[in-house]
Amino acid sequence: MANTADIAKKQLKVLVPLAQGCEELEAVTVTDLLTRAGMQVVTAGLDSNPVTASRGMVLIPQTTIDKVMDDDFDLIVLPGGLPGADYLQNSEQVQTKLKQMAANNKTVAAICAAPKALASAGLLDGKAITSYPGSLDDSEINNMNYSNNSVVVDGNIVTSRGPGTAMDFALTLIEKHLGKDKRNEVEAPLMRPIN
Amino acid sequence: MANTADIAKKQLKVLVPLAQGCEELEAVTVTDLLTRAGMQVVTAGLDSNPVTASRGMVLIPQTTIDKVMDDDFDLIVLPGGLPGADYLQNSEQVQTKLKQMAANNKTVAAICAAPKALASAGLLDGKAITSYPGSLDDSEINNMNYSNNSVVVDGNIVTSRGPGTAMDFALTLIEKHLGKDKRNEVEAPLMRPIN
Repeated sequence: MANTADIAKKQLKVLVPLAQGCEELEAVTVTDLLTRAGMQVVTAGLDSNPVTASRGMVLIPQTTIDKVMDDDFDLIVLPGGLPGADYLQNSEQVQTKLKQMAANNKTVAAICAAPKALASAGLLDGKAITSYPGSLDDSEINNMNYSNNSVVVDGNIVTSRGPGTAMDFALTLIEKHLGKDKRNEVEAPLMRPIN
Repeated sequence: MANTADIAKKQLKVLVPLAQGCEELEAVTVTDLLTRAGMQVVTAGLDSNPVTASRGMVLIPQTTIDKVMDDDFDLIVLPGGLPGADYLQNSEQVQTKLKQMAANNKTVAAICAAPKALASAGLLDGKAITSYPGSLDDSEINNMNYSNNSVVVDGNIVTSRGPGTAMDFALTLIEKHLGKDKRNEVEAPLMRPIN
């Protein structure tokens, strides 16, 4: 968890790759909330076309993945959705970036079907994780500590289940990096129902 | 509430005006979930430019509001966010469409700051409603039955509070038009936490 010195240091930079067929609600929940928390969110397409998301919304990423391969990021966050998550899994550049960031102890996060891209990068063996039910092969899950919790944090790996957990996923990332007070500051004005 | 005959009849058509500075999480939650429910969602910009939403995501609407003024819709749903909601309030075309649809007993829905556009169209007097706290003038609220519930349905007027209530807002619209079974069918795969 973040300490005050880290928090004051610099604006955190987040890479959100946007594949064709990504789940727009997950993508936008992440970019919206991390932006509200004061992070610099960089959306990067896998190609130079506008992204048609899984339920039809068309998004224009800020840049493309090839242009940010040499940039430093504090977090990489993968939205789910199909076929979006398959494209993330099959993208050589995304796989390279995931491995590079994990090796440098940066936060690697994925929601819904996107943990499969982390599995392909070899980042989930022995880890506590979750994902959209059925989106990982049983043979892969055997090597993981798989749960049905909404959000699972294991060191620098953060995973979550689907559109209905995207808000908790984003708030967990905010709390992990910027502390509980910042999480509360972002969460309160969302007007979530009080349970 | 919908009966079986209505449900079978035809695909429901939904107009979602997208103003510059709309809240992207609210816009996308509505378009995503109503699309999942099988409705035909038409996103319409107030101008012909891509829409830069309130937290930076850039969306491309399918059409512009001037091109759909003569089209029939079953629902109109206004996302909130600022300055987006102000643009909706000040758009002559949006105001015309709101009045036209309300007069024809179509569903008129707004979330967050967007109920102010309904107030300007004269649709909220004497109605049970909610909105983002502080987004309506006190003098306006005096004529309404204002509550802090997450989603409020009063006849054909449906209102809600903010990004954290957008999912319940969309699911309520689905249930109102397509019934509880369809709502459940859309809600289950979202993987919302079980309280």
